[in-house]
Amino acid sequence: MEAFLEEARTLLAELVALPTVSAEGRALAEGAAKVAEVLEGLGLEAALHEGYGPPVVFAQGGVGERTLLLYNHYDVQPPDPLELWESPPFSPTVREGRLYARGASDDKGQLFAHLLAAEGAPVNLKFLVEGEEEVGSPHLLPFVRANRERLAADLVLVSDGAMVAPHTPTLTYGLRGLCYLEVRLLGARRDLHSGAFGGVAPNPIQALGWLLARLKDERTGRVLIPGFYEKVRPVPEEEKALWPEPDEEALRRELGVEVLPGEEGYTALERLWARPTLDPNGVWGGYQGEGSKTVIPAEAGMKLSMRLVPDQDPEEVAERAEAYLREVCPPGYRLEVRRLHGGRPFLTDPFSPPMRLMARALEEVWGRPPVYAREGGTIPVVAELKEALSAPVVLLGLGLPDDNLHAPNEKLDLVNLERGTAAIRRFYELLAAPSGR
Amino acid sequence: MEAFLEEARTLLAELVALPTVSAEGRALAEGAAKVAEVLEGLGLEAALHEGYGPPVVFAQGGVGERTLLLYNHYDVQPPDPLELWESPPFSPTVREGRLYARGASDDKGQLFAHLLAAEGAPVNLKFLVEGEEEVGSPHLLPFVRANRERLAADLVLVSDGAMVAPHTPTLTYGLRGLCYLEVRLLGARRDLHSGAFGGVAPNPIQALGWLLARLKDERTGRVLIPGFYEKVRPVPEEEKALWPEPDEEALRRELGVEVLPGEEGYTALERLWARPTLDPNGVWGGYQGEGSKTVIPAEAGMKLSMRLVPDQDPEEVAERAEAYLREVCPPGYRLEVRRLHGGRPFLTDPFSPPMRLMARALEEVWGRPPVYAREGGTIPVVAELKEALSAPVVLLGLGLPDDNLHAPNEKLDLVNLERGTAAIRRFYELLAAPSGR
Repeated sequence: MEAFLEEARTLLAELVALPTVSAEGRALAEGAAKVAEVLEGLGLEAALHEGYGPPVVFAQGGVGERTLLLYNHYDVQPPDPLELWESPPFSPTVREGRLYARGASDDKGQLFAHLLAAEGAPVNLKFLVEGEEEVGSPHLLPFVRANRERLAADLVLVSDGAMVAPHTPTLTYGLRGLCYLEVRLLGARRDLHSGAFGGVAPNPIQALGWLLARLKDERTGRVLIPGFYEKVRPVPEEEKALWPEPDEEALRRELGVEVLPGEEGYTALERLWARPTLDPNGVWGGYQGEGSKTVIPAEAGMKLSMRLVPDQDPEEVAERAEAYLREVCPPGYRLEVRRLHGGRPFLTDPFSPPMRLMARALEEVWGRPPVYAREGGTIPVVAELKEALSAPVVLLGLGLPDDNLHAPNEKLDLVNLERGTAAIRRFYELLAAPSGR
Repeated sequence: MEAFLEEARTLLAELVALPTVSAEGRALAEGAAKVAEVLEGLGLEAALHEGYGPPVVFAQGGVGERTLLLYNHYDVQPPDPLELWESPPFSPTVREGRLYARGASDDKGQLFAHLLAAEGAPVNLKFLVEGEEEVGSPHLLPFVRANRERLAADLVLVSDGAMVAPHTPTLTYGLRGLCYLEVRLLGARRDLHSGAFGGVAPNPIQALGWLLARLKDERTGRVLIPGFYEKVRPVPEEEKALWPEPDEEALRRELGVEVLPGEEGYTALERLWARPTLDPNGVWGGYQGEGSKTVIPAEAGMKLSMRLVPDQDPEEVAERAEAYLREVCPPGYRLEVRRLHGGRPFLTDPFSPPMRLMARALEEVWGRPPVYAREGGTIPVVAELKEALSAPVVLLGLGLPDDNLHAPNEKLDLVNLERGTAAIRRFYELLAAPSGR
């Protein structure tokens, strides 16, 4: 196992050293070529598909009756702020059993668990490795829809997430969806002097405040868009019984806050995993510099996103939100709404046959049964793959909550790469065995 | 008169060519020296006073029994955005009887009316010309308080404003005051991923929205800070009878809006001149770039200013506002309030003896009586000079509403420089005459 990991570390280091930052369009062709090269080295038949943004890597090979589609991505988040990294983001460094580099956990390290487990696997494997996940996978769905037959599989395995805690194998059976809007409010035709025009001028910043207060109730924390909660599926008690004991005190400590504001009537864990949210993610308008400027700006804007849960639909939520914004927009302002990004929520049976096999594999490797978790984040492709391929999905996250995803000093605990690889191999064996069919 | 104006234009062009941008600390010593040089050339005794920010120019001279203090400023606003200027901001250019340059109207051109009128005036003149007006005159009040005797005068004449319309001599008898705050809201200890933490994380942008909605009523346009209107002096009907007929349609056209939002129950003119306002002047927080970023920021902030009317006091209003903000700040946020800038409102008797004399002078020169106006803006030093010197103040604005103050292509109509100078000279004669004493 040691020699095997040693070789993997070398290959992984080569891939992680490539600055495949999709937001900046950097090194993506090189990243795709490197992934294809490693896949070919494993005896798979690999090809780069052009015309869908950065090359989509697709490879297949293997033996037996069962076919899996493995999803990962080779692109990474921008490394800024660089000055906070203890070692350079694209010079992978191992310290105390952890690999430090941008992409170590999200998602090149987890891709490597799939690559390592592929060698000699008793199943058919199809790798789908994209280069646009960090910018919302805008071209992947067209690729999936155009290649349904090529991608067809008995099940989909996705490793692009985290365990809930160290030494705690985790099976994720739900993800929130996303509806992301940009909202702009326009008032007068130009910026105005607040002395000369204060009292008659529309103020788009003030109006944005009124809109925000209309979007979310200050007292209850509930979203006020009519029908927003209509399709939210309640969580059955037997599902909640699966969840780990919540530690709100630890969460408060982590965030450095005294209260955890949110929708009244739900625990913090339920609010994170199974309730939809609305959050402004950015706001701008007028003078932002030092000191004072007495301006009434001609416009102001905000980014506004909603995390969605089954059975909310991003398109429908965007329509409801936009209609409501238009309804409550005060007179005298022009409202512009742009839909930036969407993703459907995902929920699957935690006890489906492949989930049960994976649970068994995890327990054999880790020596303890897995925890069942939902995640508050979104991987838009998961719901789409499930639907387009009519196949069950298994989400096996090998990262950790403290992996510093999207932040400086991203890392992967190599023990999780090793155990994750072993668990996936064991999963393949169980799948291929007569009882696994 | 033509030769006289010709000479003045040359001197004015030299002064206006100096980029005396106080916000950037540019060319202020040169500007002060130039002003002093022109004053010395007029036979006055001029000195630069150091230790109060950029040099304060003070000069005196003249004859007779009456003494006037003339206030102006030699600093200007930054010229950005440069690309919108039709001729460079510090290369004064005359086109169609207008002088185009930064500071042409605000306030170097108006200072020149005072300089031109000084020659051979039958009164004693004291010039007070500062270099920090555009950044809020932070050092002028200490200078005034430390130099009460030196500045002592029978009346104060200030030219740093505008006529209400072309060919309409205007006597301004009121200015609004100002209370300017910076408000910051802090939530979690660091920026958070909106998927991983949406549902439990404080969101300072959302909370800023709630605060804004609590500050101003959306329906009535009224400021909701308790006691905010307590000291507001109502406008007597006989004062309103002085005001020009309001043309709200023209105002709507100028602003490019269909409605003029504001406090219900008051005309647009009363809201601009005699009612206090509250306006956010800037807002920031989270992601402001292209596309989407799913962040819940650790903090957000805004600039917030209130225009004040008699007898509101900026310090008292700041205290009330801060106390109210603390009261309505939702739990889970840390609120920081900084007081950036203040200025007291000013109101004087439009029919005081010196105002009557100036009205007569204006009517003789323009051939029509002046309009009486308040202004919505603030010149903090005016209320302070009135109080520190116990002297009446005459505000004679020689600019026009379309002079593009603080904007590209600032200009001064030279006819107003010429007529303003003539009116001020005539004012001096009337003051010095036995009936003017």
